[in-house]
Amino acid sequence: IQSKLPEISTTIFTIMSKMASAHNAINLSQGFPDFETSPKLIELVHQGMQKGYNQYAPMQGLSSLRECIAEKTTELYQKKYDPETEITITSGATQAIFTIISAFIKEGDEVIIFKPAYDSYEPSIQLHKGIVVPIQLKAPNYRIDWKIVKEKINPKTKMIIINTPHNPSGTIVSEKDMLQLAKLLKGTDIILLSDEVYEHIIFDQKKHQSAAKFSGLADRAFITSSFGKTFHTTGWKMGYCLAPKALMTEFRKVHQFNVFCSNHPIQYALAEYLKSPENYLSLPNFYQKKRDLFLSLIKDSRFTCTPASGTYFQLLNYSKITHEDDVAFAERLTKEHKIASIPVSVFNLNHQDDNVLRFCFAKNEDTLKSAAEILCRI
Amino acid sequence: IQSKLPEISTTIFTIMSKMASAHNAINLSQGFPDFETSPKLIELVHQGMQKGYNQYAPMQGLSSLRECIAEKTTELYQKKYDPETEITITSGATQAIFTIISAFIKEGDEVIIFKPAYDSYEPSIQLHKGIVVPIQLKAPNYRIDWKIVKEKINPKTKMIIINTPHNPSGTIVSEKDMLQLAKLLKGTDIILLSDEVYEHIIFDQKKHQSAAKFSGLADRAFITSSFGKTFHTTGWKMGYCLAPKALMTEFRKVHQFNVFCSNHPIQYALAEYLKSPENYLSLPNFYQKKRDLFLSLIKDSRFTCTPASGTYFQLLNYSKITHEDDVAFAERLTKEHKIASIPVSVFNLNHQDDNVLRFCFAKNEDTLKSAAEILCRI
Ligand SMILES: CSCCC(=O)C(=O)O
Ligand SMILES: CSCCC(=O)C(=O)O
Repeated sequence: IQSKLPEISTTIFTIMSKMASAHNAINLSQGFPDFETSPKLIELVHQGMQKGYNQYAPMQGLSSLRECIAEKTTELYQKKYDPETEITITSGATQAIFTIISAFIKEGDEVIIFKPAYDSYEPSIQLHKGIVVPIQLKAPNYRIDWKIVKEKINPKTKMIIINTPHNPSGTIVSEKDMLQLAKLLKGTDIILLSDEVYEHIIFDQKKHQSAAKFSGLADRAFITSSFGKTFHTTGWKMGYCLAPKALMTEFRKVHQFNVFCSNHPIQYALAEYLKSPENYLSLPNFYQKKRDLFLSLIKDSRFTCTPASGTYFQLLNYSKITHEDDVAFAERLTKEHKIASIPVSVFNLNHQDDNVLRFCFAKNEDTLKSAAEILCRI
Repeated sequence: IQSKLPEISTTIFTIMSKMASAHNAINLSQGFPDFETSPKLIELVHQGMQKGYNQYAPMQGLSSLRECIAEKTTELYQKKYDPETEITITSGATQAIFTIISAFIKEGDEVIIFKPAYDSYEPSIQLHKGIVVPIQLKAPNYRIDWKIVKEKINPKTKMIIINTPHNPSGTIVSEKDMLQLAKLLKGTDIILLSDEVYEHIIFDQKKHQSAAKFSGLADRAFITSSFGKTFHTTGWKMGYCLAPKALMTEFRKVHQFNVFCSNHPIQYALAEYLKSPENYLSLPNFYQKKRDLFLSLIKDSRFTCTPASGTYFQLLNYSKITHEDDVAFAERLTKEHKIASIPVSVFNLNHQDDNVLRFCFAKNEDTLKSAAEILCRI
């Protein structure tokens, strides 16, 4: 068999989570909460099943859920999406991203991505014979230099993928960034894929700059979001995407033959749960407490950092401890010190190593305390 | 925007289900039960959520569920699949099919399919620039003529897709068919995609001829199955696929970047539920009663048929009633007579029209009675 993705092996998330459990290590690698979701939300799914929402949902998603999303988006970003033609429920944001790339990327199309980047973008582009045009961002601030982006744009540029709040760095883009991006894209046919799965996890009173807020971006953008991130249910595999009608029409052509539709009882439950905006508006405060606890507990360690502005990830630089490469150090931390993290080099261009590891702080206080204890001893 | 699938519009299932509800018609079009799944299974999902199976499942699926599937497959088809490397849980069988095609079909690869065919195969192949090589089967028996298949096979043939029990015709392949297919494929690199989502819905003491039973097929086959079909939960979007390790390795490279993994609490529930084989072994009897009831109720109508051997679909020929084309007749039945079906021509080569409609009998007795009453009046 000839492989279409010869260089791809198992994702780092699977590798590190497996290593964590094999060595009984605290798992701050793969991003998921170790606390429970709301019992209310679980009861709503149960109710959905009992009420008989067990057969196919509409392909584009349950209309009540799409309407809630339309309202939320209008409220938060002052942008009205038509639930009928511009909002689609997906089986997680990753499925949305894969489907967007499948629907648009053809042989030779260039796609600009920013490294470090979530690891699904590149293989998805390569599978469709697109050309990945990576732009490496510099630690510790990971700012985008729009001059470099401008240089990379050419008639073959089909898509730009941004991600804010940014995984793995925890940085966010500013309003100025988005305005500059809009200026760059003006007059082109370039599609923007704005991966905003951590839209509700943002700290220090900062504001999420959704592509939806900028008319010059929203009119060409797919925006993806994730209920798993927002409601602590990464294993339910539910997300959604927004796009102007012309783009969404093409998306749905592929979506209907990929998954056809997403889980029905969970869609019912989410539509009910979204009726209380407090359920997502409480997130910044909830996760900021965790970030602050984690940072205060490791402040006397030899790890250094810039506090995350968003996401539930914190990068820690370990160059005061060792200059081992980050993959080796992450492995040693897991096996010897019983704490698992993600080496950031795997997301960088040419696996550039800045001696930085990513830790997930979507964890119980006790977990964070045990983790910090270990980190302070290293 | 240039479309990669310019000719694709909404699937017939969405169109007919929408028409059914707009005209308050009995919906025997899209294939899904109108009765409830087992309360036990619902409680198991609830239990899964309460026990905390709410974060990412392993990418390839929950190991307990993969082990149950391995046992079932050994028991029913005398073929041992390794749960670790040869079984993957998917977000429905359609997602498995799309992922298989994404992982293997490259520009110019030929894929042999049999028409009438489930409507996801063709666009999925075309999206990857594969060439669809359709072979039209003849009503009312829809038998495969292996001589014609042999003529179509050439060095560019990358894949053959079969589907047994067959949607929409309700026919099944025989052991002899499978042996002939094995003979044809011997010595080639052709991948077999055997879509067996109705494996447990088969009538008149007939036996499902899974590709898993034939060593000359199993060693080159992806076999897809669907929990939605088996447990009356099409809206939960859960299925699985089987393949030899070398093929499955390539599949998972794409799967992990498409959906990453499938719903976790449902996987927990299915693993528990599969422990009682009665839960799927009772299916032939359960659905045969429905088929027989439906056929007995319409025996005095002017529709004619060959009883389905499998699936929960029954084709009815209406040429004694009218010679309208089937799309027009299906529309008229929905709007005027308040009963929705699927016109089979949409699945045929060049939309060949045999004056045949597909009716789904996965319905309550009352629904089948009301439907039959209408059909007898026409
Ligand atoms: C899909 S597994 C990875 C989860 C995640 O988004 C992360 O850890 O970055
Ligand atoms: C995915 S919707 C179609 C359901 C089905 O398999 C059918 O009706 O044939």
